[in-house]
Amino acid sequence: MGSLHFEHEFGNKPLDSEEFRRQGHLIIDFIADYKNVEKYPVRSQVEPGYLRKRLPESAPYNPEPIETILQDVEQHIVPGITHWQSPNYFAYFPSSGITAAFLGEMLSTGFNVVGFNWVSSPAATELENIVTDWLGEMLNLPKSFLFSGNGGGVLQGTTCEAILCTLTAARDQTLRKIGRENIGMLVVYGSDQTHSALQKAAHIAGINPKNFRAIKTSKSSAFCLSAEALQATIKSDIEDGLIPLFLCATIGTTGIAAVDPLQPLCEVTRRYGIWVHIDAAYAGSACICPEFRHFLDGIENADSFSFNAHKWFFTNLDCCCLWVKNPSALNQSLSTNPEYLRNKASDSRKVVDYKDWQITLSRRFRALKLWLVLRSHGVGNLRNFLRSHMKIAKHFEDLVRSDKRFEVVAPRNFSMFCFKVSPSSALFKHENDDEKDEKSNEMTKTLLEKINTSGKVCMSHAIVGEMYVIRFAVGASLTEEKHVVGAWKVVQQNLDSILSH
Amino acid sequence: MGSLHFEHEFGNKPLDSEEFRRQGHLIIDFIADYKNVEKYPVRSQVEPGYLRKRLPESAPYNPEPIETILQDVEQHIVPGITHWQSPNYFAYFPSSGITAAFLGEMLSTGFNVVGFNWVSSPAATELENIVTDWLGEMLNLPKSFLFSGNGGGVLQGTTCEAILCTLTAARDQTLRKIGRENIGMLVVYGSDQTHSALQKAAHIAGINPKNFRAIKTSKSSAFCLSAEALQATIKSDIEDGLIPLFLCATIGTTGIAAVDPLQPLCEVTRRYGIWVHIDAAYAGSACICPEFRHFLDGIENADSFSFNAHKWFFTNLDCCCLWVKNPSALNQSLSTNPEYLRNKASDSRKVVDYKDWQITLSRRFRALKLWLVLRSHGVGNLRNFLRSHMKIAKHFEDLVRSDKRFEVVAPRNFSMFCFKVSPSSALFKHENDDEKDEKSNEMTKTLLEKINTSGKVCMSHAIVGEMYVIRFAVGASLTEEKHVVGAWKVVQQNLDSILSH
Repeated sequence: MGSLHFEHEFGNKPLDSEEFRRQGHLIIDFIADYKNVEKYPVRSQVEPGYLRKRLPESAPYNPEPIETILQDVEQHIVPGITHWQSPNYFAYFPSSGITAAFLGEMLSTGFNVVGFNWVSSPAATELENIVTDWLGEMLNLPKSFLFSGNGGGVLQGTTCEAILCTLTAARDQTLRKIGRENIGMLVVYGSDQTHSALQKAAHIAGINPKNFRAIKTSKSSAFCLSAEALQATIKSDIEDGLIPLFLCATIGTTGIAAVDPLQPLCEVTRRYGIWVHIDAAYAGSACICPEFRHFLDGIENADSFSFNAHKWFFTNLDCCCLWVKNPSALNQSLSTNPEYLRNKASDSRKVVDYKDWQITLSRRFRALKLWLVLRSHGVGNLRNFLRSHMKIAKHFEDLVRSDKRFEVVAPRNFSMFCFKVSPSSALFKHENDDEKDEKSNEMTKTLLEKINTSGKVCMSHAIVGEMYVIRFAVGASLTEEKHVVGAWKVVQQNLDSILSH
Repeated sequence: MGSLHFEHEFGNKPLDSEEFRRQGHLIIDFIADYKNVEKYPVRSQVEPGYLRKRLPESAPYNPEPIETILQDVEQHIVPGITHWQSPNYFAYFPSSGITAAFLGEMLSTGFNVVGFNWVSSPAATELENIVTDWLGEMLNLPKSFLFSGNGGGVLQGTTCEAILCTLTAARDQTLRKIGRENIGMLVVYGSDQTHSALQKAAHIAGINPKNFRAIKTSKSSAFCLSAEALQATIKSDIEDGLIPLFLCATIGTTGIAAVDPLQPLCEVTRRYGIWVHIDAAYAGSACICPEFRHFLDGIENADSFSFNAHKWFFTNLDCCCLWVKNPSALNQSLSTNPEYLRNKASDSRKVVDYKDWQITLSRRFRALKLWLVLRSHGVGNLRNFLRSHMKIAKHFEDLVRSDKRFEVVAPRNFSMFCFKVSPSSALFKHENDDEKDEKSNEMTKTLLEKINTSGKVCMSHAIVGEMYVIRFAVGASLTEEKHVVGAWKVVQQNLDSILSH
């Protein structure tokens, strides 16, 4: 590979096979060593602008050896990384990479095909058809969501894309009936716990911002969207002459992992012909365990469902799995048919052209990494892996509950839950009720900042029902019980330290 | 890494360091061997549905060893791949991967951070700030597009996203002035050669499909968008009470690599306050060579500019570089500020939060691979590498021109050009003019299908100005002069074979 001609002309061979092998092995060892990630502070300790001070102002004119670059990665990049792979990382939602997914991403990068339609690389399309059917079956999705039942799945980058695509399809389906000039009448529904992706998608798709409904939830109903509240909101919108379009229900909300009740919600939406999308970005994976599948009860009345295999399903970023019952609704909104992509296979309509299932034309061969995850571990081990995270989370929950200074703010459904310094603890016995809430919120916020500044563990926060809470999400692939035991010590020590000042 | 506890409970350790190392080295060798890609037919020879016949119906319950999986990749996946990395691949636009980009992607996958905002991994944001400034400087972009000039760059997945983001920003900027209810009045402009990404983006963003203008181009003006035609179209729209919003001008169109004249076009758009986006998806990279930079003359009057480093700039899929003059226009349309992402650094406004520059929240650490490409080769070699592709393309062009049966249908600007069986060749001396055109188109189509079916090389097609043309794009990283000499033989032999029947 790479002839003398090239070597002579460019001084280096950009894809020489032996050099690829040598440098590839170097990087594998570098990343294998990085897995010893516990030695770094979990949350990066750098200050804004740190990197510009350390790197040259311009790109180099001459080549630099990989060894020099790797030294710079170690010295300048690693300190600026917040280590999502650390076993002591409990912030946001997990970004749980495993070896199998890494290898799949390498293969995909190595083949570097652009699988916009079937003919551009048939294996990329067909493997995606197959793994989304496999995974849909593991989740016990209704057959109508699978290719074998005339629905189908697609691997997109993120939930933001999945929601924008389904919302656009729903919008156009309705506008075809009522006329394009009525775009300003369409209403989109979620709860105040729904991910900001919904509001952003509605905005991009040209829905009037005034017609976005974030229906209030409350602690008493565990921050779930109530069907009654949805019904009342829809009724009021219809009275105002508006047109209900789209509901995004969530299985495992971002704030607190609440589960919206699909069955009652879909009973409401059916009356109005509203498109229901189920966003199970984080918690969807748990539903491959039979004992958690009930969270999806009612899905048969939804139109689309997505979860992020890159969150809590071990498939490195990015990989959002989206299933729809009616691919043609998606295709009618998203298909393009430029002449230069026309080909016999597409014209025969015997193949899937994924460009018509997503925003972008070019797309990576994401199915490979998901296929490697499924095959390298098998359904049985994947279930057990998820269960182990829930067990570890429960252990941490038990520790929190054993300390009366804290409270767990809502039932734990999965591997994530929220806790805070308890307003009803003895710490605030001299305050009135308003002060108790305010001071416990403040102390929780201070505590979280101290925890993260320590670099020993990393957690994040939310505000739900006016409570400032610490979110604790288990799911990093390296996390074991000992790590949450350690994390608990960090929490207690930091609270002690706050109280001793 | 990975305790006995885990091993016992799950039967396998999903991120064990030594197993990672072993399997990682295996895959490196697999991919290094794949670089011997010339042995495969370039365009996959499989039939629709081939893979479902070969793979099990469901995911396995038990784990399978990586060796078995790799065997399946070789036996079942590779035959379904159209080999974009082959030196004999000349279809569509190049997907030019090189070792440095592959290594960068590996590092990014290994760190597996989710860099939605600065604090979630400062290095991911800051390196992206730096490399987009570096690259902007290499392209000699006006300073107003760089962070150092209060503009800035972002790495998105594809041009489709870049256009949707800038179009949404432009839409909202205008709607803030004229009122949201006027969304149906906004008009988007391109030429009949503009990429379908523009029409799709306009559709998603809620622009009335009636208000999308694909202005006609012609052979006589080399399929460039003419400023006069744009002016006339705008004038007519304004007379109809519509509001001109957005122009997408292209440097290197998909069909024929035509270059829209930025200076005269921007003189028109300035009069009407139209947002101008420059789509240089394929050809932008060439402008790092001083002798090609003139194609960007006039860019100072545009609002945004994008090119795909994953096309002809060696940075594996996906990596679209977008620069904007006014990041706050983008941010006003695309920012979300959910409580759980709030943090001191963002509140200080001293940092960039890239979630507000794109459609999606989650994002990969793409800057690493671009940084590795720039450093591993340096500006000098990258320029020479691009020049070599143009030289190789010119060699092929000379071969085509030497055979009177063919014609080159428009001037070659970069490493891609189109040719066809010439209607004025002696082959059609007995036909009238209409027949000449029709028959030469048919013969060109037949020829292309035979070429691709041979598996020896892969090319694609376009229809421009009613001509069916073969697109020939040089840019695969392994392509050398000998490969286009071989490709030319395949073309000639197949035409000979058609003529002998």
